[in-house]
Amino acid sequence: MPRFNPLVETLTAPPIPSVFAWGDAYDGRSGPMIDFSQAVPGYPPHPDMLRLLGEYAASRAYTGYGPIEGEDSLRTAYAAHVSESYGTSLSAGNIHVTAGCNQAFICAAMAVAGAGDAVLMTDPYYFNQETTLAMLGIQTRFAACDPAKGFLPDVATLAAGITPDVRAVALVSPNNPTGAVYPPELLAAIYDLCAARGVWLILDETYRDFLPAGAGRPHDLFGRAGWENTLISLYSFSKSFCIPGHRLGAITAGTAVVEQVAKIMDNLQICPPRSAQAAVATALPLLADWREENRREIARRVEGLLSTMAAVPAWRVGAVGAYFAFIGHPFGKTPSAIVAERLAKEAGVLCLPGSYFGAGQDGYLRFAFANADVATIALLKDRLNRFVLG
Amino acid sequence: MPRFNPLVETLTAPPIPSVFAWGDAYDGRSGPMIDFSQAVPGYPPHPDMLRLLGEYAASRAYTGYGPIEGEDSLRTAYAAHVSESYGTSLSAGNIHVTAGCNQAFICAAMAVAGAGDAVLMTDPYYFNQETTLAMLGIQTRFAACDPAKGFLPDVATLAAGITPDVRAVALVSPNNPTGAVYPPELLAAIYDLCAARGVWLILDETYRDFLPAGAGRPHDLFGRAGWENTLISLYSFSKSFCIPGHRLGAITAGTAVVEQVAKIMDNLQICPPRSAQAAVATALPLLADWREENRREIARRVEGLLSTMAAVPAWRVGAVGAYFAFIGHPFGKTPSAIVAERLAKEAGVLCLPGSYFGAGQDGYLRFAFANADVATIALLKDRLNRFVLG
Ligand SMILES: Cc1ncc(COP(=O)(O)O)c(C=O)c1O
Ligand SMILES: Cc1ncc(COP(=O)(O)O)c(C=O)c1O
Repeated sequence: MPRFNPLVETLTAPPIPSVFAWGDAYDGRSGPMIDFSQAVPGYPPHPDMLRLLGEYAASRAYTGYGPIEGEDSLRTAYAAHVSESYGTSLSAGNIHVTAGCNQAFICAAMAVAGAGDAVLMTDPYYFNQETTLAMLGIQTRFAACDPAKGFLPDVATLAAGITPDVRAVALVSPNNPTGAVYPPELLAAIYDLCAARGVWLILDETYRDFLPAGAGRPHDLFGRAGWENTLISLYSFSKSFCIPGHRLGAITAGTAVVEQVAKIMDNLQICPPRSAQAAVATALPLLADWREENRREIARRVEGLLSTMAAVPAWRVGAVGAYFAFIGHPFGKTPSAIVAERLAKEAGVLCLPGSYFGAGQDGYLRFAFANADVATIALLKDRLNRFVLG
Repeated sequence: MPRFNPLVETLTAPPIPSVFAWGDAYDGRSGPMIDFSQAVPGYPPHPDMLRLLGEYAASRAYTGYGPIEGEDSLRTAYAAHVSESYGTSLSAGNIHVTAGCNQAFICAAMAVAGAGDAVLMTDPYYFNQETTLAMLGIQTRFAACDPAKGFLPDVATLAAGITPDVRAVALVSPNNPTGAVYPPELLAAIYDLCAARGVWLILDETYRDFLPAGAGRPHDLFGRAGWENTLISLYSFSKSFCIPGHRLGAITAGTAVVEQVAKIMDNLQICPPRSAQAAVATALPLLADWREENRREIARRVEGLLSTMAAVPAWRVGAVGAYFAFIGHPFGKTPSAIVAERLAKEAGVLCLPGSYFGAGQDGYLRFAFANADVATIALLKDRLNRFVLG
């Protein structure tokens, strides 16, 4: 057989399917499986969302090729939504719709970096960002996040990591895997650093609709003069609208970035799936109250997780917020993959090993608890307290 | 502003939107616009297709994340379809569903080549394949196709083009832009060449459902022992099912290739859009007769184009087949982009300049005539015979 691209051949296999296999091997001995593996909301989409998806998909109007950058209707509706959420004034030209936020990231990364360039990330990191860069031959550098500081990145550490070959700093807030919510002041300081050093700030805000009540705006960066020359913000419609299977995300950036991304997207898939775009354009204003109610529900799950974990003294909450908690396990140097596999097969708690998110994260597990309601989360108490690594 | 990736910044802008602008500037003086610009069928999807798309999109069953490689239902149905079409026996494990055939190509290219490697293409080529490789830093080499041989590639020319850095030969049959249908014996000889030289053969078969009646199988390569070690076949559901806006394509390859592509696709978009996959899985067997009727209709359009062009003596049909004709214009060294722009704005005939498909193609225009019915195609006679470059 001719060889494969070594950058792809040496990539580890996608982690989620292998974790599902541990779940399949669970015999139910500790009660029903608690699935904290994948970042999906446990509740269904709104009935109006499903109705709109069905209506537009059945329409001939969306069967042809559409605009590369996305449907005008969604770009306009989403620009208005971002403008309102951040107290700023953006237009459709600042939006590039993508087939999900992973695609938004690869487009943003390719727009600013090629093989041999470097991107600075945090450690822990969202694994698909790391594998995306690796398969493109883009070097990855890591700024370690201190558990003692709630896994928030440190500006001085980031500054030291911006070597001359670094083209962008890639951040995720609220964070995957830790759940840490980066305060606006921290994001402002990192933005200033990036602007001063002439590198892009790629900010993945997939979970920004799940901030705690009264948290205010995620950040004020869109209000900065010349923000277009530094910030590329990424978003996913998967979580807020419960429609990951329909594949929709968005890039918010300067028009010059949108223009570069359009060239990439034309090659990548010509246009994003159309009828779902039209459906979400209509649903965006319509489902505002429903999304707010979900935000509250996820906040209740955060509270539920915190009070449950308070009754599990051997385990530590490293950080928590939005969809995730990063939980320190009590098994010392035992690799997190072993702990997670045993936890799945014996305690019926399915989660991701910390090691999937960074070489130094073996003391942790990622609980994507948004998947479970408060009553289910409470079951953790007995499951974890009883769990032993024999 | 920090710099962009120079490989992306130097890409030419996607060609189709700029050609649409010529069409918008047409004042109607020669009659209604004849749109030969984009490769889309001029007829609508089958009503059952729209109904199925609507039903599945409205279902909660497809709102979550799905398998990276595609829905089992579509992989199984499509494997059966390919097996029947090629008289072979493939299974779901040989199929990776993608969001269209452009995405199938970038996945196949990335699986086998990285920055600094090379891919050998034909000249003329399908422009998105060239820009895809360019933005990845993959070198492109070209084997010129002789107009005197109907733009079929020459095996000896390809053989000479396989330098040590070439990882794959990328072909399109039926061809875009020329329409040339590569005979099975030619594909067999090129396959043998690739197998002997240890390079992949990436074969884009987007238009294979539009072969002339009685043409038989597109090729017998899936019947070769060890075909998995040479052939990667690409397909699009856009044309045959009239649903480009729903973004569906497929890769047919060995399971080792599918495994590499899954790692890429996880980063690129996690999974293809799900509800449309389920709809096409159901529609595939259901709409066989309808697709056969469309094949006949497109064949009638080929005949219509040939008889019309026979009455336009100054213009030459370089090649024709499936969706395209590659037409030699009579304006000597005038660049094809000038001819195409004037033709759009003055004669109301919208088509693509040959130069978009290769440096040496300025004598030609691409007519994507599948877009127009036989009566509309017949209007070409007067439009072209009267057209002068003042
Ligand atoms: C931080 C982050 N970015 C992007 C994604 C991908 O989301 P999408 O479904 O929009 O591709 C996820 C999904 O879990 C995520 O956690
Ligand atoms: C040869 C060829 N390959 C791939 C494509 C892309 O098709 P899809 O809509 O499946 O991405 C086209 C579209 O025109 C094409 O002509």
